[in-house]
Amino acid sequence: MSKTFDELIAKVNEMEMKKVSVAVAQDSAVLEAVRAAKDRKIADAILVGDKDKIRKVADEMNVDISDFEIIHVADDIEASLTAVKLVHDGKADMYMKGLLPTKDFLKSVLNKEVGLRTGKALSHVCVFEIKGIDHLLFLTDVAFMPYPTLEDKVSIIENTLQITKACGIENPKVAPLAAVEVVNPKMPVTVEAAELTQMNRDGKITGCIVDGPLSLDLSIDPEAAKHKGATDRAIQGDADILLFPDIHAGNLVYKALVHTAEVKNGNMLTGTKAPVILTSRSDSFEVKVNSIALAAVVAESMKNN
Amino acid sequence: MSKTFDELIAKVNEMEMKKVSVAVAQDSAVLEAVRAAKDRKIADAILVGDKDKIRKVADEMNVDISDFEIIHVADDIEASLTAVKLVHDGKADMYMKGLLPTKDFLKSVLNKEVGLRTGKALSHVCVFEIKGIDHLLFLTDVAFMPYPTLEDKVSIIENTLQITKACGIENPKVAPLAAVEVVNPKMPVTVEAAELTQMNRDGKITGCIVDGPLSLDLSIDPEAAKHKGATDRAIQGDADILLFPDIHAGNLVYKALVHTAEVKNGNMLTGTKAPVILTSRSDSFEVKVNSIALAAVVAESMKNN
Repeated sequence: MSKTFDELIAKVNEMEMKKVSVAVAQDSAVLEAVRAAKDRKIADAILVGDKDKIRKVADEMNVDISDFEIIHVADDIEASLTAVKLVHDGKADMYMKGLLPTKDFLKSVLNKEVGLRTGKALSHVCVFEIKGIDHLLFLTDVAFMPYPTLEDKVSIIENTLQITKACGIENPKVAPLAAVEVVNPKMPVTVEAAELTQMNRDGKITGCIVDGPLSLDLSIDPEAAKHKGATDRAIQGDADILLFPDIHAGNLVYKALVHTAEVKNGNMLTGTKAPVILTSRSDSFEVKVNSIALAAVVAESMKNN
Repeated sequence: MSKTFDELIAKVNEMEMKKVSVAVAQDSAVLEAVRAAKDRKIADAILVGDKDKIRKVADEMNVDISDFEIIHVADDIEASLTAVKLVHDGKADMYMKGLLPTKDFLKSVLNKEVGLRTGKALSHVCVFEIKGIDHLLFLTDVAFMPYPTLEDKVSIIENTLQITKACGIENPKVAPLAAVEVVNPKMPVTVEAAELTQMNRDGKITGCIVDGPLSLDLSIDPEAAKHKGATDRAIQGDADILLFPDIHAGNLVYKALVHTAEVKNGNMLTGTKAPVILTSRSDSFEVKVNSIALAAVVAESMKNN
């Protein structure tokens, strides 16, 4: 089981090297990240996009890309379809966004002929290593699905279980979060959290332990759980997956962690046939490299199942 | 302007000593906090409740309460009404919850004859000193009002301005938070945030600068604001007041800060005639002492206006 990003990367280093296909690769931050990923034996890359522009950006950043395969496609939409088809056809293992709008990137992911759709809803997972917490935390959905319904939340949990499994976490604990840890009919989020818990008990959500509604302290802090006497709960400060009520709560907590705590993190899209890396321009260099490592672990796990 | 809790407490030390009236004072954590507050010259206290029980709890905790005034009222509801009346009548400056349910405590706060109601909506503010951020942050509402309407949000801002003013912050910057920093009609929170901003421009919300919707990184991290090129925004990582979409988002961020970042914090209820301290059993000793100091600063400010 990977408990830190160092452990995750060590695991990746032991695997056969995976390959990431980059859509519209003329993006300085992405080129730096794939260079570092290759140097650290995390993943190789195929750069799809405008060859001249890719070379120009690499030169400006002083990034050596001589050992990467480059596929020249000048048009951005065409480049994205070419890049995603490489993953669809098994010539690459992961798909990564370069210099094109998220909307266009997602269209390629969902393309019926060459894309990576499974029919499942897509969701986003952000993996955190946080100082003071002895295992990885999987936050979802902090960036993609705005207002998930109960059904969406089931999909989000199922999508995320693929990622926890890839990280070697057996039967992870899922905390459907709220401001409080008891059901309050005036707070629909708590009612839905209880419904998810019941669906898990009834065998409708499997491969994990769901216990909600749960406040954040009871989810991540064993001392707080002890102090509050939460001895009857399935989760006592030891949650693996934090399921957020909506994108606002998720995104605000995500950014609170990144901007105030000591953390490492990486993220990816889930619900696709192969790992999809959709980092944003505000993500740091390390986040991009961590995201590639995470995707590589998931690609390996998908291959073996 | 107070930028840390040490500065806030130094300010309190220079003031004439305030007095906190405690409702149902036979609470070990509260007795420890008022003892420390008096020792640190933050505030004196009047203990209202069952005299024997108060003495017993103090003895068990080895807390010296010999220099506190005790008013014996055996019945809890009666004790709360007696305690709040002391503040109503100006015999004490702040009102604090002891060992009684929040519901009963609030009833005393809102009592028409002896309570502290102003006709305004009550809201909660949590003040944070966070390592890496060079000024105090005022988070609202993370604990009291579940799903504030637009009108409620105006009240929350107005209530919080009393607190920032007491802390010496002129024209504070208010960030109505969301997952994103642009208006998206599919996200009602962003529409309301824009409406609050417009109301501020139109002079309907005064004494502050409102700029929303705003993501958390643009609200609290000047580097992130610079990186994202947010040079046209009134807030560029320098928000004072963080206005949350709802209690779930607020409470989850609040607990993320407390349980993962290096922080000091204190909190109080607002919208009342005098400061009301409503700490919870999960709040640490230091949080309770900080909350008394915060209330003392606000009491002084209210007296001078």
